Amino acid sequence: MSLEQLFNPKSIAVVGASAKKGKVGNIVLRQVKESRAEVYPINPKEPKIEGLKCYRSVTEIEKQIDLAVISLPAPLVLGAIKECASVEVRNAIVIAGGFKETGERGKRAEKQILKTKGKMRILGPNTLGIYFPGNKIDTLFLPPDRMQRPKEGKIAFISQSGAIAATLMDRLALYGIGISAFVGLGNKLDINENECIDYFANDQKTKAICVYLESFKDAKGFGERCKKISPKKPIVVIKAGRTERGKRAASLHTGSLAGSDQVVDGAFKQCGVIRAKTPNELIDLGRALAYTLPPKGRRVAIIGNAGGFCVTCCDLIESHGILRVANLSSRTKSELKKVVLPFASVENPIDLTASAVDRMYKDTLDILVESKEVDCILCGTSPQPPGLTEKLPEVVGRYADRLPIIAYLVGGREAIERIRSFEKLGVAAYPEPESAVKTLEAVWQWAENTRT
Amino acid sequence: MSLEQLFNPKSIAVVGASAKKGKVGNIVLRQVKESRAEVYPINPKEPKIEGLKCYRSVTEIEKQIDLAVISLPAPLVLGAIKECASVEVRNAIVIAGGFKETGERGKRAEKQILKTKGKMRILGPNTLGIYFPGNKIDTLFLPPDRMQRPKEGKIAFISQSGAIAATLMDRLALYGIGISAFVGLGNKLDINENECIDYFANDQKTKAICVYLESFKDAKGFGERCKKISPKKPIVVIKAGRTERGKRAASLHTGSLAGSDQVVDGAFKQCGVIRAKTPNELIDLGRALAYTLPPKGRRVAIIGNAGGFCVTCCDLIESHGILRVANLSSRTKSELKKVVLPFASVENPIDLTASAVDRMYKDTLDILVESKEVDCILCGTSPQPPGLTEKLPEVVGRYADRLPIIAYLVGGREAIERIRSFEKLGVAAYPEPESAVKTLEAVWQWAENTRT
Repeated sequence: MSLEQLFNPKSIAVVGASAKKGKVGNIVLRQVKESRAEVYPINPKEPKIEGLKCYRSVTEIEKQIDLAVISLPAPLVLGAIKECASVEVRNAIVIAGGFKETGERGKRAEKQILKTKGKMRILGPNTLGIYFPGNKIDTLFLPPDRMQRPKEGKIAFISQSGAIAATLMDRLALYGIGISAFVGLGNKLDINENECIDYFANDQKTKAICVYLESFKDAKGFGERCKKISPKKPIVVIKAGRTERGKRAASLHTGSLAGSDQVVDGAFKQCGVIRAKTPNELIDLGRALAYTLPPKGRRVAIIGNAGGFCVTCCDLIESHGILRVANLSSRTKSELKKVVLPFASVENPIDLTASAVDRMYKDTLDILVESKEVDCILCGTSPQPPGLTEKLPEVVGRYADRLPIIAYLVGGREAIERIRSFEKLGVAAYPEPESAVKTLEAVWQWAENTRT
Repeated sequence: MSLEQLFNPKSIAVVGASAKKGKVGNIVLRQVKESRAEVYPINPKEPKIEGLKCYRSVTEIEKQIDLAVISLPAPLVLGAIKECASVEVRNAIVIAGGFKETGERGKRAEKQILKTKGKMRILGPNTLGIYFPGNKIDTLFLPPDRMQRPKEGKIAFISQSGAIAATLMDRLALYGIGISAFVGLGNKLDINENECIDYFANDQKTKAICVYLESFKDAKGFGERCKKISPKKPIVVIKAGRTERGKRAASLHTGSLAGSDQVVDGAFKQCGVIRAKTPNELIDLGRALAYTLPPKGRRVAIIGNAGGFCVTCCDLIESHGILRVANLSSRTKSELKKVVLPFASVENPIDLTASAVDRMYKDTLDILVESKEVDCILCGTSPQPPGLTEKLPEVVGRYADRLPIIAYLVGGREAIERIRSFEKLGVAAYPEPESAVKTLEAVWQWAENTRT
């Protein structure tokens, strides 16, 4: 069965809906009320919650339920699943932890749920839930003042860890970065990463798939579908080296960790998966891959208004050895000389200096595009000098469909604002040059994968 | 002559003061007006600027001038220097660029200034200026709405690049990180990094010295003083590999860069200098070194409320091979078991889980301090789950004088706020685990240097 009715439900029951602010069953209800779905709170003790008529049980609702969000503690989950199955609820999200991750007893409880659920599909247990900004489906049990929601965008984000997901979405919201969807896998009792990847492979809104995994449900199946999907739609994955803590602690001392990690590295390369090492990198790479034109070659032009950062970028690119700082012809350099300040440098890095104004970025980009001597642009701006205006992102963004451009904006509050502006224009921008360089390399790597 | 009267002037003349908002000569005047010094605007055309009586020339002021900030374009600087020298102004800051960095003519202009200046000391030309939050001396020509000012703190920051300095100070302000002083070296016509390092070595407020350099004025002298100073006061340096752009561009292709860079690496190690690779790292390392107790050994305890980040830290520490994740005894683990949630992990990393509350951090830290099984703490928090309160930094901060603690806070706006809270308590905190791990390693490295 497709996951369509889970991700885009027309009717949602909140089992364990609560009238008490701050309770999971209240947060979830308030969030799903904002969707276009019909919403049914289930609580035997309340006549009405959050202005909605309350039901004693899902069995009392006379309509077909596409999704039941089960906001009950672990010991009550099985009963709820039974009731949902009896009226053929299509999907259930089980929020509660306290299952397989806590030992044998929890494993047995999960098996019972599987036996009981019938045709119903289950996400979780132990999941943060799902969030689809496009249709306002938000079952996340963290209140928005604790975890801001990212807006609608082009990245599908699948995570086995709720905490990683929550922090990353909170960060995405800060920088104004959008996602097409978030799915928290939790314990993967039923629905797993492979099905989700298939779903987003076919989702028009999704341009890149980012996955945080601690274990594979079916490693072979994972590799096979990634191999097929990744040339068309980039897939970025964090594979946290180990699943059980005990195993991990042991492997840290025996060195078996490094070995198995290399296996994962090799497998990812074979199936075209871009590997991220840390949580921030997962999303950093994902959005560059979602928005940026694939570079045709390795030649980078570095543009900036802060010499020190130009040098930093140069150092980073050359030391990694994946891309290279383009050599500009004398002709291009003399063209550049005409449009920049007398004391600016037109060697690559092109340092427009702290006295740069927006127009110099525009003219420089014109000349570089025309020259055909560069394959991609690393565009840095320090918003502190007064010469650049808030229109710079627009000026630069216009070139993003002609050459791959990655931007970085260094500094404090204003830098964050400018990153948000670049994001709006679909240009991936980062708060420091290190991430910008890494992501440009990843974009090149993906382009290279799709060529070979 | 000591730099005391430059850095703590009792009287300041702003040569080229302007009545026009947004002009350098206006911004500087408005900033220095906030200091306790007597301030004299110099402009032959205006009777009064910003409410202060205006002078036609420094020669008209009857008092001794400790500092003249020369806010004039390059061609007018020599004249101003002459006048200042004639009335024995003690120090001058020359803001204008357009000297040695632009070629032969600029070099000659600098030589003329040197000949003319007499006993007067000169900072610059081509400098962002100085900023001493303690005595409110701020000659920076960037308006505060473009570049926020960091508050008073313990890091002295010396930079040859104005742009790097501006972006970093803007970032420091965002995270609520303080500095004792900033000095922009610019072209180093007279005052250089060595004198400044000597000054801050003796400055009680300064606990760590951070330096961004593109060239050494006197490499031997630099090494000698660092060797003497660094065991008592940590020195962190970025040495941007190359001085002239042309030389750099060439060296990128001949490989001479890597060679000379290794020389710098070796020299820094010999004189106990901690080397930073990127601008953010400079300050990241500097503040950890300024605040954090020196670890006695390599054993790290990782505490967190997000499993995925605990694993990330574990991966980072073990893969770098500088520190190691401490093995906790069964006794300590069973003590921990008593204070954490049943499903929390007390293996190291200690994952308190998303259901953690402040008290669990406190109890865990109590037990770890008591155990003597760890030398330092990497303390992560994801502020998204509702269990932790805004008091957590205070709870954790109380242990910072018993064990070295580095914190990281992941997420969006609230994470930034919590970083600010940790900062207030003198605990270095970072927006992602990568920086936290790197800085903990640097702190250990410095402690190790001072031992041997």
